[in-house]
This record gives sequence, C-alpha cells and structure tokens, in this order.
Amino acid sequence: MDFTELQSRLRAFADERDWHAFHSPKNLAMALSVEAAELLEHFQWLSQPESANVSEQTRAEVAAEVADIQIYLAILADKLGIDIDRAVDDKIAKNAMKYPPGATGLR
Amino acid sequence: MDFTELQSRLRAFADERDWHAFHSPKNLAMALSVEAAELLEHFQWLSQPESANVSEQTRAEVAAEVADIQIYLAILADKLGIDIDRAVDDKIAKNAMKYPPGATGLR
Amino acid sequence: MDFTELQSRLRAFADERDWHAFHSPKNLAMALSVEAAELLEHFQWLSQPESANVSEQTRAEVAAEVADIQIYLAILADKLGIDIDRAVDDKIAKNAMKYPPGATGLR
Amino acid sequence: MDFTELQSRLRAFADERDWHAFHSPKNLAMALSVEAAELLEHFQWLSQPESANVSEQTRAEVAAEVADIQIYLAILADKLGIDIDRAVDDKIAKNAMKYPPGATGLR
Repeated sequence: MDFTELQSRLRAFADERDWHAFHSPKNLAMALSVEAAELLEHFQWLSQPESANVSEQTRAEVAAEVADIQIYLAILADKLGIDIDRAVDDKIAKNAMKYPPGATGLR
Repeated sequence: MDFTELQSRLRAFADERDWHAFHSPKNLAMALSVEAAELLEHFQWLSQPESANVSEQTRAEVAAEVADIQIYLAILADKLGIDIDRAVDDKIAKNAMKYPPGATGLR
Repeated sequence: MDFTELQSRLRAFADERDWHAFHSPKNLAMALSVEAAELLEHFQWLSQPESANVSEQTRAEVAAEVADIQIYLAILADKLGIDIDRAVDDKIAKNAMKYPPGATGLR
Repeated sequence: MDFTELQSRLRAFADERDWHAFHSPKNLAMALSVEAAELLEHFQWLSQPESANVSEQTRAEVAAEVADIQIYLAILADKLGIDIDRAVDDKIAKNAMKYPPGATGLR
C-alpha cells in the first residue's frame, strides 16, 4: 500500500463528490470509530476461538470493515499531514522499549 | 507501507512476547476500537475548524493513535487472512458505484 | 428508573432466552460500545448546531439507541454488582472537586 | 434513579462551569463513545470468565466508567428531550416481539 498514492485517489474521490466540507478531522475520527464498532459487532457474541474461525461470509464482511477503517485512517492522516509509515515505525520502536522481549505484561 | 512485511515484523514482535494467546480476532477488534476512541478523545470538545488546526503536540499524539490503529488493523488482517490492499481497492470500487460523482448524499 | 427493578426484568428476559452464557462482562462491554457507536453514527456528518435540531425521525432513532445503551449498562452493572445510583453520586462528587465552578477547563 | 432530578443536577453543574457550549448532542455522543471504550479497555485482554471475576480495584474503576456513561447518557437525553424511562420500556417491548422466549438467536 502506497499511502501517498491512496491518499491522492481518496482526495480525488472526495473532490468529485464535494465531501471535503464533511471531512474535518473531528468528523473523520467519528467515522473511523463508527467503522471500528461495526468491525467489533461481528465478534461481540463469539468466543475467542470462534472469532478465529469465522465463515467465508463473515470474513468478507470483516474485510469490508477493515477497508473502511483503512480508508478513513488514510484520509485523516492526509488532512493532518501525518505520515502513517513513519508513525508506525516510531510506535514499533517505542513499543520495543516499553515491552522488552520476554516480559509478561499484556498487550 | 508493505503490509506483508509489516505483518511479519508484528508477528515476530508478538512471538517474542508470547502475545499470540491474547491476539484473538475478538480481542484485536476490541483493542482497535479502544484505540479509535483514544483518537476520538482528542477531538471531542473541539469545533470542526479547531480539529483541523491542532497544535504540534496534539498532532504528535494523534499520530501515535493513528499508528496504534494501523498496527492492530494489520495484525487483525493477518490473523484472518485478509488482504488489506485488495479490500481497500474493492471498497473504493464499490463506493464509486454507490456514490456516483456529483451525488449530494453525505459521507 | 428503579435500576433494581429494571435489572430484575432484564434478568428474567435473558433467562427466558438462555442468553446468560453470552452475557459475560467482556461481551456486554463490547455490545455497549457497539450501541454507543450506533448513537454516534447519527451525528457523524452533522454540524454541532444541526445535532441539536434533528428531525422527529432521527430523535426517535436516537431514543432507541439511548435505550440500548441504558439496557446494556444495567445488565453489566447487575453482573458485576455495581450500584449505578451510588456510582453516579460518587462521580458527581468527584467531578465537583476536580472541576471547581468557574474553572475554564473543558468537559 | 430519578432521571429528571439527575438531569437537573447535571444542568446546574454545567451552568456553573459554562459547559453548555461544549454540550452539543454531537459532542456528547462522542464523549459517551469515548467512555464506553474506556470501559471496554478494562476487559480487552481478559477471557470471558476472567471478565466476570475482576479484582475489587478493577470493579471500582469499572463503576467509575459506568457512572461516566450514565451521566453523559442523561445529559444527551436531556438535550434532545428523550425520556429514558419510556425509551427503555419501548425497547424492551420491542425486543420481546423480536426475540420470542425460547428462540435461539443471539444477543
């Protein structure tokens, strides 16, 4: 995934539909949260083992929610000038310090 | 972002910390939802224009939440065998049909 | 609202449908979060003034989400032996200390 | 819990702190969603049985989140003129129709 290329595709998509007025970071964060909950909904009554063994139908629906989350994340990062690749690298480096290998803390 | 490469880095990270037992899709969807809300929290009392003009400090904190969401999204997709690049392409194609350019519907 | 009475009604409701196995606090917290996002969805593309002036139709839909949240909150509190009335009184007292009248902090 | 009385207490609380400008239904729905996620966070890495057997410390923290959710729910309902008692009664009646006793559907 080339985020720069994705973001420019999504920017053109929003341009053609006059959506920019709706795409404040506040609204995008809300939309992302709503999509995250739609993902969650698929798993809410499942046991943990069941959640790892979903039907093809559920997997396809979950993939569509994953896409929605990825799309809003890319638009939000674009609006705020956040470099996702770099933010992820920074976070992994930080987590490696915070949770040394072999540590038994959760996450 | 090469998701295959990221997912293999995150898999190694979880291996070294014995986290796989915690990483059921159910739990990962919860964690993703929690991170989405931490992102939301930054914007909850801001007006829409204010949300587009945050301080450098807030922007850095938001970037860290964006990274957490991206990381959980990649791990979840990995666990369920979901190809994020393809899911995003499929969703954009579907949205292009659902919301023709010039349509005035929201989103 | 008499929470004790509501909780006993909801307990009977779950009994009759064999839902208790699904009603772990973990699952109930997920369900509550999903309902909170369904509430959020009604407001995601609205401006703040618009959100205070919704149609009767939207108001009725929002009322149904408010009810879902209230119901899951009561069931969860019941499962964990939490007294909602007392928790609310404690929290208001705590907030009164944390945010003295006239303070300009947000919330 | 007398919601009318609670709502008038919360209205006075917001008056004294000049919070009404922040309390649009949009913002309140965001705040409620954030609190629901803080509740969720307590359970995200727990198994379902563990979530029913939390420590006294966790139970007290969960009670504080339950209170936050109840408080925002009451303020939001107040702002929109929603009668929570009635909305809950309506929803239980509707659920009784939708899920007849003995039905095996989830929830």
